[in-house]
Amino acid sequence: MNHFFKNHRRLTSTFNIFGSSNLSKRSRALFSSFASDLLEPDSWKSMEGLVRCKANYVPLSPISFLERSATVYRDRTSVIYGSLMFTWAETHQRCLKLASALSLLGISRGDVVAVLAPNVPAMYELHFAVPMAGAVFCTLNTRHDSNMVSILLKHSEAKIIFVDHQLLDIARGALDLLEKTGTKPPMVVLISESDGSSPTGSSSSSYEYESLLANGHSGFEIRQPESEWDPISVNYTSGTTSSPKGVVYSHRGAYLNTLATLFLHGIGTMPVYLWTVPMFHCNGWCLTWGMAAQGGTNVCLRKVTPKDIFDRIDQHKVTHMAGAPTVLSMIVNSEVRDRKILTHKVEIMTGGAPPPPQIFFKMEELGFGVSQLYGLTETYGPGTYCSWKPEWDSLPLDERLKMKARQGVQHLGLEDVDIKDPVTMESVPADGKTIGEIMFRGNTVMSGYLKDLKATEDAFSGGWFRSGDLGVKHSDGYIEVKDRAKDIVITGGENVCTVEVETVLYNHPAVLEAAVVGRPDDFWGQTPCAFVKLKEGFDVDAQDIIKFLQGSLATLHGSQNCRF
Amino acid sequence: MNHFFKNHRRLTSTFNIFGSSNLSKRSRALFSSFASDLLEPDSWKSMEGLVRCKANYVPLSPISFLERSATVYRDRTSVIYGSLMFTWAETHQRCLKLASALSLLGISRGDVVAVLAPNVPAMYELHFAVPMAGAVFCTLNTRHDSNMVSILLKHSEAKIIFVDHQLLDIARGALDLLEKTGTKPPMVVLISESDGSSPTGSSSSSYEYESLLANGHSGFEIRQPESEWDPISVNYTSGTTSSPKGVVYSHRGAYLNTLATLFLHGIGTMPVYLWTVPMFHCNGWCLTWGMAAQGGTNVCLRKVTPKDIFDRIDQHKVTHMAGAPTVLSMIVNSEVRDRKILTHKVEIMTGGAPPPPQIFFKMEELGFGVSQLYGLTETYGPGTYCSWKPEWDSLPLDERLKMKARQGVQHLGLEDVDIKDPVTMESVPADGKTIGEIMFRGNTVMSGYLKDLKATEDAFSGGWFRSGDLGVKHSDGYIEVKDRAKDIVITGGENVCTVEVETVLYNHPAVLEAAVVGRPDDFWGQTPCAFVKLKEGFDVDAQDIIKFLQGSLATLHGSQNCRF
Repeated sequence: MNHFFKNHRRLTSTFNIFGSSNLSKRSRALFSSFASDLLEPDSWKSMEGLVRCKANYVPLSPISFLERSATVYRDRTSVIYGSLMFTWAETHQRCLKLASALSLLGISRGDVVAVLAPNVPAMYELHFAVPMAGAVFCTLNTRHDSNMVSILLKHSEAKIIFVDHQLLDIARGALDLLEKTGTKPPMVVLISESDGSSPTGSSSSSYEYESLLANGHSGFEIRQPESEWDPISVNYTSGTTSSPKGVVYSHRGAYLNTLATLFLHGIGTMPVYLWTVPMFHCNGWCLTWGMAAQGGTNVCLRKVTPKDIFDRIDQHKVTHMAGAPTVLSMIVNSEVRDRKILTHKVEIMTGGAPPPPQIFFKMEELGFGVSQLYGLTETYGPGTYCSWKPEWDSLPLDERLKMKARQGVQHLGLEDVDIKDPVTMESVPADGKTIGEIMFRGNTVMSGYLKDLKATEDAFSGGWFRSGDLGVKHSDGYIEVKDRAKDIVITGGENVCTVEVETVLYNHPAVLEAAVVGRPDDFWGQTPCAFVKLKEGFDVDAQDIIKFLQGSLATLHGSQNCRF
Repeated sequence: MNHFFKNHRRLTSTFNIFGSSNLSKRSRALFSSFASDLLEPDSWKSMEGLVRCKANYVPLSPISFLERSATVYRDRTSVIYGSLMFTWAETHQRCLKLASALSLLGISRGDVVAVLAPNVPAMYELHFAVPMAGAVFCTLNTRHDSNMVSILLKHSEAKIIFVDHQLLDIARGALDLLEKTGTKPPMVVLISESDGSSPTGSSSSSYEYESLLANGHSGFEIRQPESEWDPISVNYTSGTTSSPKGVVYSHRGAYLNTLATLFLHGIGTMPVYLWTVPMFHCNGWCLTWGMAAQGGTNVCLRKVTPKDIFDRIDQHKVTHMAGAPTVLSMIVNSEVRDRKILTHKVEIMTGGAPPPPQIFFKMEELGFGVSQLYGLTETYGPGTYCSWKPEWDSLPLDERLKMKARQGVQHLGLEDVDIKDPVTMESVPADGKTIGEIMFRGNTVMSGYLKDLKATEDAFSGGWFRSGDLGVKHSDGYIEVKDRAKDIVITGGENVCTVEVETVLYNHPAVLEAAVVGRPDDFWGQTPCAFVKLKEGFDVDAQDIIKFLQGSLATLHGSQNCRF
């Protein structure tokens, strides 16, 4: 083949793949390096006899996990919610019927289906049924108000919204707002309480979850993704900037991040998983899909309380759970009467924010094994974790806690994580001191922000996903998050990490929760300002806390200005 | 976009992807259903703002496992061989230097590099270094003679062959044969013994492994695959038919089968793996790459003896190992003086042939946890495994052994396994009785047979990989291998499974090993014929064995004709 023709082929292909005229030049430039990857690879030419066909190629998708569990784990318990229990064979059947019902409602490939619900069985089933109907699943934060829900429904162009009965008022308010602005609102499907205790009175235009599901066919032919790059879900994040962004996950990324998260959490076959992470958060850190992969039991909880946590652990022999540091804080600060002695070790992953080191130790005293992960919505949730080194077991407690508090190393699904100068893109020295921006690269980084190519390109500029988080790299390659870029308080030209001040505050015996922010100051530019919530029964005032801080944190500038 | 233009795009792209004129029409037909998958998916059109770039896409490849372990597990032991030990940082550096050296020797993308070596450290390092140089790794069976080696070197067009010092004569014989037929022989790299004990006298044209490696640069820029479909290795299998076939693995398939095998064997972080499976066999069932994924320790063994197995388990606290049933047989029949009491459970995977159920029990008595897998070279080794159900623990021993002997269910990397009528492609009933052909479908099925498109297409006809093995499906969906199609003996019109007869033979206290084949017979057509090896110290004759068989196997036709 002469060079002209070869080049011609390349260019034509680039056009074919990216020909859609709504892509900017910049976006085409981002794409172009991959054109060759989508063609028949050059190396196949020298290797005749190879084919790609249905026998040896299936787009990667979490749907495969459920189909497999329907065989491998068919009689094992898939979902527990109060007295309700399903097996994997039943969950598979129910998801097929639900996907069929969605299809009968007119949902077609690429449509968005939203949900506003806590961790109830319907929420779990929708994680499979929506993609099985070829649609894209949009989980909304249950803490949003009607205004925010209406904004996200409009932005995502959701065709249907599934709403838990307790959140119906929020959803109705959102639909009213949409109608007022002339936007056609989505169909509503009401998720009633499984014991029939839900209040009645839903509008006549609504569908009801169980009735809808009952109308579907279990022989439904799954709409497998046409490509593993097809979107499977969109997760809205407020991020640190003003407008919410719709982070799009692909079937491929979801499949790979699921496996990586199972590995990092050491989840073997047939785990029992307690749902203390909201499933609306990064699709439950991808473990919604992960439980199907390993034939696990999903213990669903409408509301997370310390008593419920201990009761479920005891009753169902929970092996794994996860949660933001607030869940850990809730456990260690729980009333003794709500606790149960753990008869087996429960592995708990924490992430979402750097937890105060003290909490690790208290959790271990209660019998939990705590590991820390770090990631963002843009990395499908978990991205790095503090891979524990056996030799650290023999360190003194405070050294051990320091190690525990690190965010660590990339999991198996990511290609790389690094701390870089965001301007020069140079890696910072691995000295544990030099602060830079945490950046990711790999197959478990989002496809982009929905309808916001500019934001997508900004986030990926330089060939890395720029997290906006600041951190350092230790000499052993482990990273440690220092703060969100915007959470660094610059006071008198010095950087103060708000997380570091919060960590010191947690050492005060009276402090239950603490948050430090920057406050404008005419002289210093900014000064750190601490908001502190006290434990019950303690009587200390601002000056006590400030004195404690001054004693512990000699390097903190302007600490005399802290107030709460 | 109007329909004409849309169709035009499709057709042009199809041409671009499959335009190479050396593909037959049939092969194009096999490909064509995937054209759409390689284009920008339709569903992306409705989802603006998404891009694929270096930040969120990397071709799946086991090379990533090594790069990650160089950070995450840098100080952990990667390889142990006698008194020789490396860390993951060292293994990473050595592989980079070796890849660099290969490149300096002129190896370029898509070239084949062969090896003829037992499980020594060089064999492990080559599994990464060869793909890192962009080349395709061809592991040759160390039991081949010079003639077979010459045939495979010619067929694969290997540019270099790495040869262990003990196998140099075989290799030299092969090179002589190549020269006699006018084929340019590959360059030879001698793998000396690490303690310098190798015999000298290699020809002046040879390179030596350590010297070669020392010439490489550790700053070598890895030649990452252009596409995850690029071949990573070729594994020759004699199969059941006459000519050897080169089974080609892709980077994508290798990556996915590695993760699936880690899951099925329950291999968590930092395992200690004893190499009793030849690395030349399906790249060590993909666990060569798997140990890098989990930061494991590779305990290398030049020769597998019971004493070495027990010594290494004791010395290095081996957690996992694997082997054909002959390895299990070697362990249970070992001399008591060669054994050591296991102070911890060692998980062992067995596969390659259905093991006699009795061996499971004996292995468990010695302290091993045995699980069974099944697969073929064409499925990257492991494809199915007997996923153990907790309730089986309470079954009576003989029932438990029956369950243990099943080949089970597909692992996480496979989409499906089924037992089908090879003509109608209908699934057989799940009755545990109806025999059909075992067929596979999924991402961990080979790319094809090298230079044998006809054989590839035959193997994939109907959209499934046809294993050529016969089996049944039980009511719970678990499959059980009955025999190779050619190993069914048809006697007087009745099918006799040779494996079943062998299983009965293993119940005889004097039988060490047994193999049953079909023997031409004028009256019956065929009769089964057993070859039996006795344990030392037993004195029984053919009639004793035949009487035992008659007693145990009432349904066996023509058993009076068994001879040994």
